[in-house]
Amino acid sequence: MALSKNRIKYIHSLELKKNRKTEKVFLAEGPKLVGDLLGHFPCRFLAATPEWLSQYSQLPVEEISEVSAEDLSRASLLKTPQQVLAIFEQPEYETDASVINHSLCLALDDVQDPGNLGTIIRLADWFGIEHIFCSPNTVDVYNPKTIQATMGGIARVKLHYTPLPDLIRSLTDIPVYGTFLDGKNMYAQQLSSNGLIVMGNEGNGIGKEVEQLINRKLYIPNYPAERETSESLNVAIATAVVCAEFRRQAASL
Amino acid sequence: MALSKNRIKYIHSLELKKNRKTEKVFLAEGPKLVGDLLGHFPCRFLAATPEWLSQYSQLPVEEISEVSAEDLSRASLLKTPQQVLAIFEQPEYETDASVINHSLCLALDDVQDPGNLGTIIRLADWFGIEHIFCSPNTVDVYNPKTIQATMGGIARVKLHYTPLPDLIRSLTDIPVYGTFLDGKNMYAQQLSSNGLIVMGNEGNGIGKEVEQLINRKLYIPNYPAERETSESLNVAIATAVVCAEFRRQAASL
Repeated sequence: MALSKNRIKYIHSLELKKNRKTEKVFLAEGPKLVGDLLGHFPCRFLAATPEWLSQYSQLPVEEISEVSAEDLSRASLLKTPQQVLAIFEQPEYETDASVINHSLCLALDDVQDPGNLGTIIRLADWFGIEHIFCSPNTVDVYNPKTIQATMGGIARVKLHYTPLPDLIRSLTDIPVYGTFLDGKNMYAQQLSSNGLIVMGNEGNGIGKEVEQLINRKLYIPNYPAERETSESLNVAIATAVVCAEFRRQAASL
Repeated sequence: MALSKNRIKYIHSLELKKNRKTEKVFLAEGPKLVGDLLGHFPCRFLAATPEWLSQYSQLPVEEISEVSAEDLSRASLLKTPQQVLAIFEQPEYETDASVINHSLCLALDDVQDPGNLGTIIRLADWFGIEHIFCSPNTVDVYNPKTIQATMGGIARVKLHYTPLPDLIRSLTDIPVYGTFLDGKNMYAQQLSSNGLIVMGNEGNGIGKEVEQLINRKLYIPNYPAERETSESLNVAIATAVVCAEFRRQAASL
Protein backbone atom coordinates (compact mmCIF):
# COMPACT_ATOMS: atom_id res chain seq x y z
CA MET A 1 0.00 0.00 0.00
CA ALA A 2 1.46 3.33 -1.00
CA LEU A 3 1.59 6.23 1.39
CA SER A 4 -1.00 8.88 0.60
CA LYS A 5 0.08 12.40 -0.26
CA ASN A 6 -1.60 13.60 2.90
CA ARG A 7 0.32 11.12 5.00
CA ILE A 8 3.64 12.18 3.49
CA LYS A 9 2.69 15.81 4.05
CA TYR A 10 1.85 15.02 7.67
CA ILE A 11 5.19 13.29 8.21
CA HIS A 12 7.09 16.21 6.70
CA SER A 13 5.09 18.64 8.83
CA LEU A 14 6.74 17.08 11.90
CA GLU A 15 9.98 18.84 11.00
CA LEU A 16 8.39 21.90 12.63
CA LYS A 17 8.22 22.19 16.39
CA LYS A 18 4.78 23.81 16.40
CA ASN A 19 3.29 20.83 14.56
CA ARG A 20 5.00 18.32 16.82
CA LYS A 21 3.70 20.24 19.82
CA THR A 22 0.13 20.38 18.56
CA GLU A 23 0.14 16.69 17.66
CA LYS A 24 2.23 15.66 20.72
CA VAL A 25 4.21 13.24 18.55
CA PHE A 26 7.70 12.81 17.12
CA LEU A 27 9.27 11.00 14.21
CA ALA A 28 11.98 8.34 14.32
CA GLU A 29 13.64 6.44 11.48
CA GLY A 30 15.78 3.36 10.97
CA PRO A 31 15.70 -0.24 12.30
CA LYS A 32 17.96 0.33 15.32
CA LEU A 33 16.25 3.49 16.56
CA VAL A 34 12.63 2.46 15.87
CA GLY A 35 13.34 -0.97 17.35
CA ASP A 36 14.70 0.64 20.54
CA LEU A 37 11.76 3.03 20.90
CA LEU A 38 8.91 0.58 20.23
CA GLY A 39 8.99 -0.81 23.74
CA HIS A 40 9.14 2.63 25.33
CA PHE A 41 6.69 5.00 23.67
CA PRO A 42 3.21 4.38 22.22
CA CYS A 43 3.52 4.22 18.43
CA ARG A 44 0.76 5.88 16.42
CA PHE A 45 1.95 4.97 12.95
CA LEU A 46 4.68 2.92 11.36
CA ALA A 47 5.68 2.58 7.70
CA ALA A 48 8.18 -0.09 6.72
CA THR A 49 9.38 -2.30 3.91
CA PRO A 50 8.11 -5.92 3.74
CA GLU A 51 11.64 -7.10 4.70
CA TRP A 52 11.61 -5.13 7.93
CA LEU A 53 8.03 -6.11 8.81
CA SER A 54 8.71 -9.81 8.21
CA GLN A 55 10.96 -9.87 11.31
CA TYR A 56 8.01 -9.16 13.59
CA SER A 57 4.91 -11.26 14.17
CA GLN A 58 3.24 -8.60 16.28
CA LEU A 59 3.93 -4.91 16.71
CA PRO A 60 2.48 -2.58 19.39
CA VAL A 61 1.45 -0.03 16.78
CA GLU A 62 -1.92 1.62 16.10
CA GLU A 63 -1.52 1.68 12.34
CA ILE A 64 1.01 -0.09 10.10
CA SER A 65 1.71 0.62 6.46
CA GLU A 66 3.74 -1.80 4.33
CA VAL A 67 5.54 0.29 1.74
CA SER A 68 8.18 0.00 -0.95
CA ALA A 69 11.66 1.41 -0.36
CA GLU A 70 10.82 4.04 -2.97
CA ASP A 71 7.68 5.09 -1.15
CA LEU A 72 9.55 5.22 2.13
CA SER A 73 12.17 7.52 0.64
CA ARG A 74 9.43 9.98 -0.34
CA ALA A 75 8.32 10.19 3.27
CA SER A 76 11.75 10.03 4.91
CA LEU A 77 13.65 13.06 6.19
CA LEU A 78 16.95 11.17 5.98
CA LYS A 79 19.44 11.40 3.13
CA THR A 80 19.60 7.60 3.15
CA PRO A 81 16.15 6.28 4.15
CA GLN A 82 16.33 3.11 6.20
CA GLN A 83 13.54 0.50 5.95
CA VAL A 84 11.27 1.92 8.61
CA LEU A 85 9.90 5.17 10.00
CA ALA A 86 7.51 5.61 12.89
CA ILE A 87 5.53 8.28 14.68
CA PHE A 88 5.59 8.04 18.47
CA GLU A 89 3.71 9.89 21.19
CA GLN A 90 5.75 12.39 23.18
CA PRO A 91 6.07 11.21 26.78
CA GLU A 92 5.10 13.53 29.63
CA TYR A 93 7.46 13.51 32.57
CA GLU A 94 6.92 15.14 35.90
CA THR A 95 9.73 17.58 36.69
CA ASP A 96 11.00 16.81 40.15
CA ALA A 97 14.19 18.64 41.15
CA SER A 98 14.79 16.25 44.04
CA VAL A 99 16.46 13.76 41.66
CA ILE A 100 19.41 16.19 41.70
CA ASN A 101 19.88 15.50 45.42
CA HIS A 102 20.71 11.86 44.94
CA SER A 103 21.93 11.55 41.34
CA LEU A 104 24.13 13.33 38.84
CA CYS A 105 22.08 15.37 36.36
CA LEU A 106 22.81 17.66 33.41
CA ALA A 107 21.45 21.13 32.71
CA LEU A 108 21.67 22.71 29.26
CA ASP A 109 21.54 26.50 28.99
CA ASP A 110 20.30 27.27 25.45
CA VAL A 111 22.05 24.52 23.48
CA GLN A 112 20.92 25.28 19.92
CA ASP A 113 22.16 22.55 17.60
CA PRO A 114 19.81 19.54 17.28
CA GLY A 115 22.74 17.18 16.64
CA ASN A 116 24.56 18.40 19.74
CA LEU A 117 21.48 17.82 21.90
CA GLY A 118 20.98 14.32 20.50
CA THR A 119 24.65 13.48 21.02
CA ILE A 120 24.45 14.73 24.62
CA ILE A 121 21.41 12.52 25.27
CA ARG A 122 23.29 9.54 23.82
CA LEU A 123 26.34 10.11 26.02
CA ALA A 124 24.17 10.78 29.09
CA ASP A 125 22.69 7.34 28.49
CA TRP A 126 26.22 5.83 28.35
CA PHE A 127 27.25 7.54 31.57
CA GLY A 128 24.06 6.66 33.43
CA ILE A 129 22.67 10.18 33.65
CA GLU A 130 18.90 9.89 33.67
CA HIS A 131 17.72 13.49 33.81
CA ILE A 132 18.60 16.52 31.68
CA PHE A 133 17.14 19.92 32.59
CA CYS A 134 16.95 22.28 29.62
CA SER A 135 16.40 26.03 29.55
CA PRO A 136 13.20 26.88 27.64
CA ASN A 137 15.28 28.18 24.70
CA THR A 138 17.20 24.93 24.30
CA VAL A 139 16.47 23.24 20.97
CA ASP A 140 13.46 20.90 21.00
CA VAL A 141 14.34 17.31 21.91
CA TYR A 142 11.72 16.08 19.41
CA ASN A 143 13.48 17.69 16.47
CA PRO A 144 14.00 14.72 14.09
CA LYS A 145 17.75 15.41 13.92
CA THR A 146 17.96 15.26 17.70
CA ILE A 147 15.96 12.05 17.92
CA GLN A 148 18.17 10.38 15.28
CA ALA A 149 21.36 11.50 17.04
CA THR A 150 20.23 10.01 20.39
CA MET A 151 20.54 6.54 18.81
CA GLY A 152 17.85 5.31 21.19
CA GLY A 153 19.11 7.16 24.27
CA ILE A 154 15.84 9.09 24.29
CA ALA A 155 14.14 5.90 25.52
CA ARG A 156 16.07 6.06 28.80
CA VAL A 157 17.04 9.71 29.40
CA LYS A 158 14.32 12.13 30.54
CA LEU A 159 14.37 15.78 29.45
CA HIS A 160 12.72 18.59 31.42
CA TYR A 161 12.31 22.09 29.97
CA THR A 162 12.30 24.57 32.81
CA PRO A 163 13.90 27.94 33.67
CA LEU A 164 17.34 27.04 35.01
CA PRO A 165 17.78 29.96 37.49
CA ASP A 166 14.58 28.97 39.34
CA LEU A 167 15.59 25.32 39.29
CA ILE A 168 19.04 26.01 40.72
CA ARG A 169 17.71 28.42 43.36
CA SER A 170 15.35 25.67 44.56
CA LEU A 171 18.33 23.44 45.43
CA THR A 172 19.88 23.48 48.89
CA ASP A 173 23.52 22.56 49.50
CA ILE A 174 23.87 20.83 46.15
CA PRO A 175 27.00 21.12 43.99
CA VAL A 176 26.26 22.97 40.76
CA TYR A 177 29.10 22.63 38.26
CA GLY A 178 29.91 24.45 35.05
CA THR A 179 32.99 24.66 32.82
CA PHE A 180 34.79 27.99 32.47
CA LEU A 181 38.17 29.11 31.18
CA ASP A 182 38.90 30.47 34.68
CA GLY A 183 37.58 27.37 36.47
CA LYS A 184 39.66 24.90 38.48
CA ASN A 185 41.38 21.95 36.78
CA MET A 186 38.67 19.29 37.04
CA TYR A 187 41.23 16.51 37.51
CA ALA A 188 42.36 18.15 40.76
CA GLN A 189 38.83 18.35 42.21
CA GLN A 190 36.87 15.77 44.12
CA LEU A 191 33.73 15.44 42.04
CA SER A 192 30.43 14.39 43.56
CA SER A 193 28.07 11.62 42.53
CA ASN A 194 25.06 13.92 42.75
CA GLY A 195 24.31 17.49 41.71
CA LEU A 196 24.01 19.37 38.46
CA ILE A 197 26.49 19.89 35.62
CA VAL A 198 25.51 22.96 33.57
CA MET A 199 26.63 23.21 29.94
CA GLY A 200 26.13 26.34 27.85
CA ASN A 201 25.17 27.62 24.43
CA GLU A 202 27.47 26.85 21.45
CA GLY A 203 28.47 30.45 20.84
CA ASN A 204 27.92 32.20 24.16
CA GLY A 205 28.47 29.56 26.82
CA ILE A 206 26.56 29.72 30.08
CA GLY A 207 24.34 32.79 30.57
CA LYS A 208 25.23 35.42 33.21
CA GLU A 209 22.28 34.69 35.50
CA VAL A 210 23.00 30.97 35.58
CA GLU A 211 26.75 31.55 35.95
CA GLN A 212 26.19 33.42 39.20
CA LEU A 213 24.38 30.40 40.62
CA ILE A 214 27.19 27.95 39.86
CA ASN A 215 29.18 27.05 42.98
CA ARG A 216 31.86 24.78 41.44
CA LYS A 217 33.62 26.23 38.41
CA LEU A 218 35.61 23.61 36.50
CA TYR A 219 38.15 23.77 33.71
CA ILE A 220 38.91 21.01 31.19
CA PRO A 221 42.70 21.18 30.77
CA ASN A 222 44.01 21.43 27.24
CA TYR A 223 47.38 19.92 26.36
CA PRO A 224 50.11 20.91 26.73
CA ALA A 225 48.82 23.23 29.43
CA GLU A 226 51.23 26.11 28.82
CA ARG A 227 50.24 26.45 25.14
CA GLU A 228 48.62 29.67 23.93
CA THR A 229 45.48 28.59 22.14
CA SER A 230 42.49 30.10 20.46
CA GLU A 231 40.62 26.83 20.42
CA SER A 232 37.62 25.60 22.35
CA LEU A 233 35.62 22.39 22.56
CA ASN A 234 32.25 21.61 21.02
CA VAL A 235 29.56 21.53 23.76
CA ALA A 236 28.80 17.81 23.33
CA ILE A 237 32.52 17.01 23.46
CA ALA A 238 32.99 19.08 26.61
CA THR A 239 29.96 17.40 28.20
CA ALA A 240 31.41 13.98 27.45
CA VAL A 241 34.85 14.74 28.85
CA VAL A 242 33.34 16.17 32.04
CA CYS A 243 30.85 13.33 32.54
CA ALA A 244 33.58 10.73 31.91
CA GLU A 245 35.70 12.27 34.68
CA PHE A 246 32.78 12.34 37.15
CA ARG A 247 32.15 8.66 36.46
CA ARG A 248 35.85 7.70 36.55
CA GLN A 249 36.12 9.18 40.03
CA ALA A 250 32.85 7.58 41.18
CA ALA A 251 33.92 4.12 39.93
CA SER A 252 37.35 4.34 41.57
CA LEU A 253 35.95 5.05 45.05
CA MET B 1 30.19 45.04 -6.17
CA ALA B 2 27.80 42.16 -6.56
CA LEU B 3 29.00 38.60 -6.95
CA SER B 4 28.62 37.35 -10.49
CA LYS B 5 26.46 34.34 -11.25
CA ASN B 6 29.56 32.48 -12.30
CA ARG B 7 31.29 33.25 -9.05
CA ILE B 8 28.33 32.01 -7.02
CA LYS B 9 28.20 28.90 -9.19
CA TYR B 10 31.91 28.33 -8.58
CA ILE B 11 31.50 28.70 -4.82
CA HIS B 12 28.62 26.24 -4.78
CA SER B 13 30.62 23.81 -6.93
CA LEU B 14 33.04 23.47 -4.00
CA GLU B 15 30.44 21.40 -2.15
CA LEU B 16 31.65 18.51 -4.34
CA LYS B 17 34.93 16.78 -3.55
CA LYS B 18 35.90 16.31 -7.20
CA ASN B 19 35.72 20.07 -7.81
CA ARG B 20 37.68 20.86 -4.65
CA LYS B 21 40.29 18.33 -5.73
CA THR B 22 40.62 19.73 -9.26
CA GLU B 23 40.86 23.30 -7.98
CA LYS B 24 42.93 22.36 -4.91
CA VAL B 25 40.91 24.78 -2.77
CA PHE B 26 38.37 24.78 0.03
CA LEU B 27 35.70 27.12 1.33
CA ALA B 28 35.42 28.61 4.81
CA GLU B 29 32.81 30.97 6.24
CA GLY B 30 32.35 33.25 9.22
CA PRO B 31 34.54 35.84 10.98
CA LYS B 32 36.09 33.50 13.56
CA LEU B 33 36.99 30.74 11.13
CA VAL B 34 38.14 32.91 8.22
CA GLY B 35 40.11 35.09 10.63
CA ASP B 36 41.87 32.01 12.03
CA LEU B 37 42.73 30.62 8.61
CA LEU B 38 43.97 33.82 6.95
CA GLY B 39 47.39 33.57 8.53
CA HIS B 40 47.76 29.88 7.70
CA PHE B 41 46.64 29.19 4.13
CA PRO B 42 46.97 31.28 0.98
CA CYS B 43 43.60 32.90 0.26
CA ARG B 44 42.50 33.04 -3.39
CA PHE B 45 39.25 34.91 -2.93
CA LEU B 46 37.32 36.57 -0.15
CA ALA B 47 33.82 38.08 -0.15
CA ALA B 48 32.71 40.09 2.84
CA THR B 49 30.38 42.83 4.01
CA PRO B 50 31.74 46.40 4.33
CA GLU B 51 31.47 46.05 8.15
CA TRP B 52 33.76 43.04 8.21
CA LEU B 53 36.25 44.54 5.75
CA SER B 54 36.47 47.82 7.68
CA GLN B 55 38.27 45.96 10.51
CA TYR B 56 41.26 45.26 8.29
CA SER B 57 43.63 47.72 6.60
CA GLN B 58 45.37 44.99 4.65
CA LEU B 59 44.46 41.41 3.86
CA PRO B 60 46.73 38.69 2.41
CA VAL B 61 44.17 37.82 -0.27
CA GLU B 62 44.50 37.60 -4.06
CA GLU B 63 41.04 38.98 -4.76
CA ILE B 64 38.55 40.70 -2.47
CA SER B 65 34.91 41.40 -3.15
CA GLU B 66 32.91 43.79 -0.99
CA VAL B 67 29.34 42.53 -1.00
CA SER B 68 26.00 43.15 0.67
CA ALA B 69 24.73 40.71 3.29
CA GLU B 70 22.06 39.74 0.76
CA ASP B 71 24.64 38.93 -1.89
CA LEU B 72 26.68 36.97 0.59
CA SER B 73 23.68 34.87 1.52
CA ARG B 74 23.26 33.87 -2.14
CA ALA B 75 26.81 32.52 -2.19
CA SER B 76 26.87 31.04 1.31
CA LEU B 77 26.36 27.35 2.09
CA LEU B 78 25.36 28.16 5.66
CA LYS B 79 21.82 28.43 6.95
CA THR B 80 22.81 31.68 8.63
CA PRO B 81 25.44 33.40 6.46
CA GLN B 82 28.04 35.27 8.48
CA GLN B 83 29.68 38.41 7.05
CA VAL B 84 32.53 36.72 5.23
CA LEU B 85 33.39 33.71 3.08
CA ALA B 86 36.75 32.82 1.64
CA ILE B 87 38.39 30.32 -0.69
CA PHE B 88 41.73 28.97 0.51
CA GLU B 89 44.34 26.78 -1.13
CA GLN B 90 44.56 23.22 0.17
CA PRO B 91 47.88 22.68 1.93
CA GLU B 92 50.09 19.76 0.90
CA TYR B 93 51.70 17.92 3.79
CA GLU B 94 54.37 15.29 3.57
CA THR B 95 53.24 12.09 5.25
CA ASP B 96 55.96 10.98 7.62
CA ALA B 97 55.01 8.10 9.90
CA SER B 98 57.95 8.81 12.22
CA VAL B 99 55.89 11.49 14.04
CA ILE B 100 54.05 8.55 15.62
CA ASN B 101 57.29 7.47 17.35
CA HIS B 102 57.54 10.61 19.42
CA SER B 103 54.00 12.03 19.62
CA LEU B 104 50.44 10.88 20.11
CA CYS B 105 48.54 10.71 16.81
CA LEU B 106 45.06 9.71 15.70
CA ALA B 107 44.03 7.35 12.90
CA LEU B 108 40.50 7.34 11.49
CA ASP B 109 39.26 4.21 9.75
CA ASP B 110 36.47 5.31 7.38
CA VAL B 111 34.82 8.02 9.48
CA GLN B 112 31.97 9.12 7.21
CA ASP B 113 30.22 12.09 8.76
CA PRO B 114 31.72 15.49 7.86
CA GLY B 115 30.63 16.98 11.19
CA ASN B 116 32.25 14.15 13.14
CA LEU B 117 35.55 14.63 11.29
CA GLY B 118 35.51 18.39 11.90
CA THR B 119 34.69 17.88 15.58
CA ILE B 120 37.56 15.39 15.89
CA ILE B 121 39.99 17.89 14.34
CA ARG B 122 38.77 20.54 16.79
CA LEU B 123 39.29 18.30 19.81
CA ALA B 124 42.66 17.06 18.49
CA ASP B 125 43.70 20.72 18.46
CA TRP B 126 42.56 21.10 22.09
CA PHE B 127 44.46 18.02 23.20
CA GLY B 128 47.63 18.91 21.30
CA ILE B 129 47.40 16.15 18.69
CA GLU B 130 49.03 17.45 15.53
CA HIS B 131 48.62 14.58 13.07
CA ILE B 132 45.57 12.59 12.01
CA PHE B 133 46.01 9.67 9.60
CA CYS B 134 42.84 8.87 7.65
CA SER B 135 41.97 5.80 5.61
CA PRO B 136 41.37 6.74 1.96
CA ASN B 137 37.62 6.23 2.43
CA THR B 138 37.38 8.66 5.31
CA VAL B 139 35.25 11.71 4.46
CA ASP B 140 37.17 14.56 2.81
CA VAL B 141 38.59 17.07 5.28
CA TYR B 142 37.82 19.89 2.82
CA ASN B 143 34.10 19.18 2.88
CA PRO B 144 32.65 22.59 3.88
CA LYS B 145 30.78 21.02 6.82
CA THR B 146 34.03 19.55 8.12
CA ILE B 147 35.92 22.81 7.74
CA GLN B 148 33.19 24.72 9.61
CA ALA B 149 33.12 22.15 12.44
CA THR B 150 36.90 22.39 12.98
CA MET B 151 36.37 25.96 14.24
CA GLY B 152 39.88 26.81 13.06
CA GLY B 153 41.54 23.61 14.26
CA ILE B 154 42.34 22.83 10.61
CA ALA B 155 44.99 25.58 10.78
CA ARG B 156 47.00 23.56 13.29
CA VAL B 157 46.12 19.87 12.82
CA LYS B 158 47.53 18.05 9.77
CA LEU B 159 45.56 15.31 8.02
CA HIS B 160 47.16 12.53 5.97
CA TYR B 161 45.09 10.19 3.79
CA THR B 162 46.89 6.87 3.55
CA PRO B 163 46.03 3.16 3.80
CA LEU B 164 46.05 2.41 7.53
CA PRO B 165 47.21 -1.24 7.41
CA ASP B 166 50.41 -0.25 5.54
CA LEU B 167 50.97 2.66 7.89
CA ILE B 168 50.61 0.51 11.01
CA ARG B 169 52.79 -2.28 9.59
CA SER B 170 55.55 0.28 9.00
CA LEU B 171 55.71 1.03 12.75
CA THR B 172 58.08 -0.87 15.03
CA ASP B 173 57.39 -1.33 18.75
CA ILE B 174 54.83 1.45 18.82
CA PRO B 175 51.61 1.21 20.83
CA VAL B 176 48.57 1.12 18.55
CA TYR B 177 45.34 1.65 20.48
CA GLY B 178 41.71 1.13 19.56
CA THR B 179 38.45 1.02 21.54
CA PHE B 180 36.48 -2.21 21.64
CA LEU B 181 33.67 -3.60 23.77
CA ASP B 182 36.03 -6.42 24.81
CA GLY B 183 39.00 -4.10 25.43
CA LYS B 184 40.58 -3.36 28.80
CA ASN B 185 39.22 -0.57 31.03
CA MET B 186 41.30 2.39 29.83
CA TYR B 187 41.44 3.89 33.33
CA ALA B 188 43.35 0.83 34.54
CA GLN B 189 46.00 1.05 31.78
CA GLN B 190 49.17 3.05 31.67
CA LEU B 191 48.73 5.07 28.50
CA SER B 192 51.70 6.29 26.46
CA SER B 193 52.53 9.78 25.26
CA ASN B 194 53.32 8.52 21.77
CA GLY B 195 51.69 6.05 19.36
CA LEU B 196 48.47 5.82 17.43
CA ILE B 197 44.86 5.85 18.60
CA VAL B 198 42.61 4.28 15.93
CA MET B 199 38.93 5.24 15.79
CA GLY B 200 36.44 3.50 13.49
CA ASN B 201 33.52 4.07 11.19
CA GLU B 202 30.21 5.31 12.68
CA GLY B 203 28.27 2.15 11.91
CA ASN B 204 30.88 -0.59 11.64
CA GLY B 205 33.70 0.48 13.94
CA ILE B 206 37.27 -0.47 13.10
CA GLY B 207 37.73 -2.72 10.04
CA LYS B 208 38.94 -6.32 10.47
CA GLU B 209 42.35 -5.80 8.84
CA VAL B 210 43.16 -2.79 11.01
CA GLU B 211 41.77 -4.49 14.14
CA GLN B 212 44.32 -7.30 13.80
CA LEU B 213 47.13 -4.74 13.84
CA ILE B 214 46.00 -3.09 17.08
CA ASN B 215 48.15 -4.13 20.03
CA ARG B 216 46.37 -2.29 22.87
CA LYS B 217 42.61 -2.79 22.98
CA LEU B 218 40.88 -0.30 25.25
CA TYR B 219 37.37 0.00 26.64
CA ILE B 220 35.65 3.22 27.72
CA PRO B 221 33.69 2.18 30.83
CA ASN B 222 30.03 3.03 30.89
CA TYR B 223 28.30 3.76 34.20
CA PRO B 224 27.24 2.01 36.27
CA ALA B 225 29.46 -0.75 34.93
CA GLU B 226 27.11 -3.64 35.70
CA ARG B 227 24.24 -2.16 33.70
CA GLU B 228 22.93 -4.02 30.65
CA THR B 229 22.93 -1.48 27.85
CA SER B 230 22.30 -1.29 24.16
CA GLU B 231 23.94 2.08 23.86
CA SER B 232 27.19 3.20 22.28
CA LEU B 233 29.08 6.46 21.90
CA ASN B 234 29.34 8.70 18.87
CA VAL B 235 32.84 8.40 17.33
CA ALA B 236 33.80 12.01 18.05
CA ILE B 237 32.62 11.63 21.66
CA ALA B 238 34.60 8.41 22.10
CA THR B 239 37.69 10.06 20.59
CA ALA B 240 37.39 12.94 23.04
CA VAL B 241 36.99 10.75 26.11
CA VAL B 242 39.99 8.63 25.11
CA CYS B 243 42.23 11.60 24.23
CA ALA B 244 41.30 13.34 27.49
CA GLU B 245 42.41 10.28 29.47
CA PHE B 246 45.74 10.02 27.58
CA ARG B 247 46.41 13.67 28.35
CA ARG B 248 45.24 13.44 31.98
CA GLN B 249 47.74 10.66 32.57
CA ALA B 250 50.53 12.50 30.70
CA ALA B 251 49.95 15.71 32.70
CA SER B 252 49.94 13.89 36.05
CA LEU B 253 53.35 12.27 35.48
